[in-house]
Amino acid sequence: MLRLTISVKNLKEIADLLNTVVTEAKFKIDANGISVIAVDPAHVAMISINIPKDVFSEFQTDGEEEIALDVERLKSVIRLANSNDMVSLAKEKEKLKFEINNIVKSISLLDNSTVTTPRIPQINSEFFVVLGKTELERGLKAAEDVSDSIKFSLTSEDFRARSMSDSEESEMVLTKDMIKEIQCSTPIKSSYPLEYLLKLVKSLASTEDLKLSFKDDYPLTIEFNFGQGKSTPNAIKGSFLLAPRMEQ
Amino acid sequence: MLRLTISVKNLKEIADLLNTVVTEAKFKIDANGISVIAVDPAHVAMISINIPKDVFSEFQTDGEEEIALDVERLKSVIRLANSNDMVSLAKEKEKLKFEINNIVKSISLLDNSTVTTPRIPQINSEFFVVLGKTELERGLKAAEDVSDSIKFSLTSEDFRARSMSDSEESEMVLTKDMIKEIQCSTPIKSSYPLEYLLKLVKSLASTEDLKLSFKDDYPLTIEFNFGQGKSTPNAIKGSFLLAPRMEQ
Amino acid sequence: MLRLTISVKNLKEIADLLNTVVTEAKFKIDANGISVIAVDPAHVAMISINIPKDVFSEFQTDGEEEIALDVERLKSVIRLANSNDMVSLAKEKEKLKFEINNIVKSISLLDNSTVTTPRIPQINSEFFVVLGKTELERGLKAAEDVSDSIKFSLTSEDFRARSMSDSEESEMVLTKDMIKEIQCSTPIKSSYPLEYLLKLVKSLASTEDLKLSFKDDYPLTIEFNFGQGKSTPNAIKGSFLLAPRMEQ
Repeated sequence: MLRLTISVKNLKEIADLLNTVVTEAKFKIDANGISVIAVDPAHVAMISINIPKDVFSEFQTDGEEEIALDVERLKSVIRLANSNDMVSLAKEKEKLKFEINNIVKSISLLDNSTVTTPRIPQINSEFFVVLGKTELERGLKAAEDVSDSIKFSLTSEDFRARSMSDSEESEMVLTKDMIKEIQCSTPIKSSYPLEYLLKLVKSLASTEDLKLSFKDDYPLTIEFNFGQGKSTPNAIKGSFLLAPRMEQ
Repeated sequence: MLRLTISVKNLKEIADLLNTVVTEAKFKIDANGISVIAVDPAHVAMISINIPKDVFSEFQTDGEEEIALDVERLKSVIRLANSNDMVSLAKEKEKLKFEINNIVKSISLLDNSTVTTPRIPQINSEFFVVLGKTELERGLKAAEDVSDSIKFSLTSEDFRARSMSDSEESEMVLTKDMIKEIQCSTPIKSSYPLEYLLKLVKSLASTEDLKLSFKDDYPLTIEFNFGQGKSTPNAIKGSFLLAPRMEQ
Repeated sequence: MLRLTISVKNLKEIADLLNTVVTEAKFKIDANGISVIAVDPAHVAMISINIPKDVFSEFQTDGEEEIALDVERLKSVIRLANSNDMVSLAKEKEKLKFEINNIVKSISLLDNSTVTTPRIPQINSEFFVVLGKTELERGLKAAEDVSDSIKFSLTSEDFRARSMSDSEESEMVLTKDMIKEIQCSTPIKSSYPLEYLLKLVKSLASTEDLKLSFKDDYPLTIEFNFGQGKSTPNAIKGSFLLAPRMEQ
């Protein structure tokens, strides 16, 4: 038996986040909460979300369980709700039943074996910067019509996001005083595909801060919290991995 | 001589309603007001509207008269007005002249003989339910990406709207306490094409309640009031007939 | 050395205005401010803008200078700013560098020789009317789905804007009391292409009044002020010339 109740806002943010990389996802449920890992078809970006039990106003499960879902269908169910509604979910045979107000909607579960859960690669860097989501978003948007990649560089003094083409150039400079936290003993830089970053940032409705870790020509890790728990704000943990774009 | 003044809000709601089934309509004017009946080209849905004289702030006519109009053109005239404006209409030869603020716009009348007025069929059912427009709209939207038809069922205890496909299912249940009025001595059910219902409900800006009458595999009648009269709210009467969709 | 600071609102209105006739424009900078003249490829409409030095919060230049820009690129830079931001511009070699908040964006200047500055023709009429932008806009919109041209007529008593097709007709009448100023000793009329007028009026965000001068079958001149100076409202002067449309 699986029965969960969660706010529409939280469920929407989870679905939007997953949708930045996949159209189908497998959720792993145990006594502590729900986790989901998804990688995009090109294996460029990976997203991992941990939703603690405390985020749900109702959380009933018998031991461990996995359910695979079409993310687009999940989003179409969410669209039926008002933003302050609660949604109840229950598994019934091969269907997931949603209850929102006086509406019941059931969608077929996908076959668990057809949706693979990727393994999280070992990615580590001791260099990181913590900055506001709106700040990063501004730098990404400035690069949007310049190039399809963006170069991040970090020193102990500042973080820069820069894009170039033959005729245009954009650069955002965030100096130490505009940054929440910075740890960098030697200057590093690496380029990333812009489109994935823009999609990620756009889907993060409730996140305030992002922790970016990387090193020279190395995958980028973005860690963030989001959503609303019963008592704790930003109770859901997310992390996003992005392969570097090699410079010509 | 024909000269009428009506609020833009009322005129817009009338035009939107007609536009759910037709692109051309013939209005019948007599000393009591205006009536119009229109059926869609596939003869699946029919709409009938009665606008009492009292809805107009000016109503001058010489006996009976019929005028046929292109509904899209009528809507393009309405778009020139602000929502609280009044519109004056006058017939001048083969044109209808609209005055809104300091703008005069004339559109050609259609030849009356090319727009036929359908006859209203004899549809009767003693079983009905009166429910809020927003409630019905929620049930219709939940069905929208499940199927192109929706099954209504009524008992003395509740009203249900249900759609199914191989992989999805949606159901809205309104129990007696969520319903304004119910009259049903034996359980009935019938399916209807969803698209027409969605269009109808979307076009009803000022309506609060809908009276749905039907029986097993029988046409649906939806009766409603809308618009604003000089003294009476929801002074315009509308009724919508919809053929049942036979189940496979 | 060229270094300017201007409000985003002013810069946006200038770019939008130029964009109604051209995609590339050449700005002439001297000690008094900036001027720009642009004519559309079909030589039907010409726009001329004079931005006095006072409109800039910073204005540094060494003598006279010309810079040619892609207007679309200018607009994409403006989109990065919030509506109350200030933008700083500096010329650096063959690039124009924009600073908005913590973003720096550079776009290539165009070759001055490829963007020609048209000469302003001698257009003169002693007959004119001064009317509200919103009034004129209403008359233009009423004509929008009637015809692609509109006929303006002026007497000492009123201004009319009229369009006709086989099946529709629209007319706006502004009598003396609805007009700011009128000077016309003999009735005049002339037709103009509607599309250019609609684009112009839509791009004028801060303008209140328009002065229209014309005579029988003669080019139309529209003079207007817009934007915000340090102390003076509507400090930027614009003028728009439009060739008459000959009646069949």
